[in-house]
Amino acid sequence: MDHQTNPLAAPPAHRPGAAVRSGIPEHGRIPKYYAVKARIAELIEELGVGRALPTERDLAERYEVARETVRQALRELLLEGRLRRQGRGTVVAGPKLEQPLSLASYTEGVRRQGRTPGRTLISLDRFACPAALAADIGAVPDEPVWHMERVLLADDERVGLESTYVTVARVPRLDEDFDPDSSFYAYLRDRLGIAFGDADERIETVLATPREALLIGTPPALPMLLLHRVSRDTEGGPLERVRTLYRGDRFSFTTHLG
Amino acid sequence: MDHQTNPLAAPPAHRPGAAVRSGIPEHGRIPKYYAVKARIAELIEELGVGRALPTERDLAERYEVARETVRQALRELLLEGRLRRQGRGTVVAGPKLEQPLSLASYTEGVRRQGRTPGRTLISLDRFACPAALAADIGAVPDEPVWHMERVLLADDERVGLESTYVTVARVPRLDEDFDPDSSFYAYLRDRLGIAFGDADERIETVLATPREALLIGTPPALPMLLLHRVSRDTEGGPLERVRTLYRGDRFSFTTHLG
Repeated sequence: MDHQTNPLAAPPAHRPGAAVRSGIPEHGRIPKYYAVKARIAELIEELGVGRALPTERDLAERYEVARETVRQALRELLLEGRLRRQGRGTVVAGPKLEQPLSLASYTEGVRRQGRTPGRTLISLDRFACPAALAADIGAVPDEPVWHMERVLLADDERVGLESTYVTVARVPRLDEDFDPDSSFYAYLRDRLGIAFGDADERIETVLATPREALLIGTPPALPMLLLHRVSRDTEGGPLERVRTLYRGDRFSFTTHLG
Repeated sequence: MDHQTNPLAAPPAHRPGAAVRSGIPEHGRIPKYYAVKARIAELIEELGVGRALPTERDLAERYEVARETVRQALRELLLEGRLRRQGRGTVVAGPKLEQPLSLASYTEGVRRQGRTPGRTLISLDRFACPAALAADIGAVPDEPVWHMERVLLADDERVGLESTYVTVARVPRLDEDFDPDSSFYAYLRDRLGIAFGDADERIETVLATPREALLIGTPPALPMLLLHRVSRDTEGGPLERVRTLYRGDRFSFTTHLG
């Protein structure tokens, strides 16, 4: 890889939440694309949300580097959600959505941020419960279970993909009287009188698979935030297992610790 | 990119927490490297934690693909923490550490998992508080503040990087009587009688910068989990702002929602 010594005379001082020294080591060499990335990051701050970035060709001329070097810098800034494609150009992205970690649903979390939540049904299947899933949802092995898969939307933008596993015994008419573009939690509460008591969640980062990238409309291998949830009703009975994938470039999670 | 139609006759059925259909689309083509990745993922399950993976050359022969194709598959499996380098070979990685989201410190979280926590001091600086940081830590602009930066260890493995910002007024002798390889929270509690009351946290995924990659010993651009924390004492007074970066291939976060 092409390297050069640190081209940034004075990286910005500490900015809350930002990488120390803009991520540039005190000593040693950094990849040339990263020096360009740090400069474009400064440009992004100057421009502000929604403003168009100069073209690749302009940026390459401005920083006196090859277009491929600019492209690599832009690729990372896109993956991180600091830029986004708009039409044929690239614009400065807004801040990531902040989804609260709570028993509340996706629907409520997105509404609280003044966005309109939506969901598109990908599939609703009945299948025999595998042993590894049984305990989490209160099933016996081979008992019929639902797998409902939906793309999550915020203001008509595809932002995630959710798989819900629940027994058919719990939700017998899921295929008949549930509108997939509505809150599953509201359906459980209002139609079946099932309320959530508590849940265990685990959050990790994974790369989008080709199937997920296709369904959500992201580049493959985009870093995603993956939430695993196992929840119980107010009696402590196992209720559902959910696997929700959120675009890593569009989402963050917040929590209040008391 | 080199493509082929789906070479996996029957992807495994639903496995709790795993991508639906192993990430392979119902229709259409997938990149050849991804088909190899899905097969190696199955091989990983068969082998079990700590077992050595066949060499790149062996895998290329087994799947009848170019070594570069195998390399790309291995790169993603390494980024995701399903494999890890050991000496000159590659072995099946253990599960990610599960760090609870709580007011408890890194130290306690790692201990609870039976690992030995450690920290290495990178720098301890005093500087004039920038306006953007002041409110979070209860400072007036330009008041002296500490920035303490430490690499986090688990069983001597570097797993993260933490920046702590706190006023000098709060912790006047941080440079004199704090052992950087110990819990800062225990120091605040035991030496200064400061207890944590509550905190706001935000979690996102970012790519490691070259400086961070150098300090933590990861590949640059590895997806990381970034935690921002702003915490207050039991009186509600602003206390510290912390930016902690955790290796995305080694960590997950857990929380109990009640």
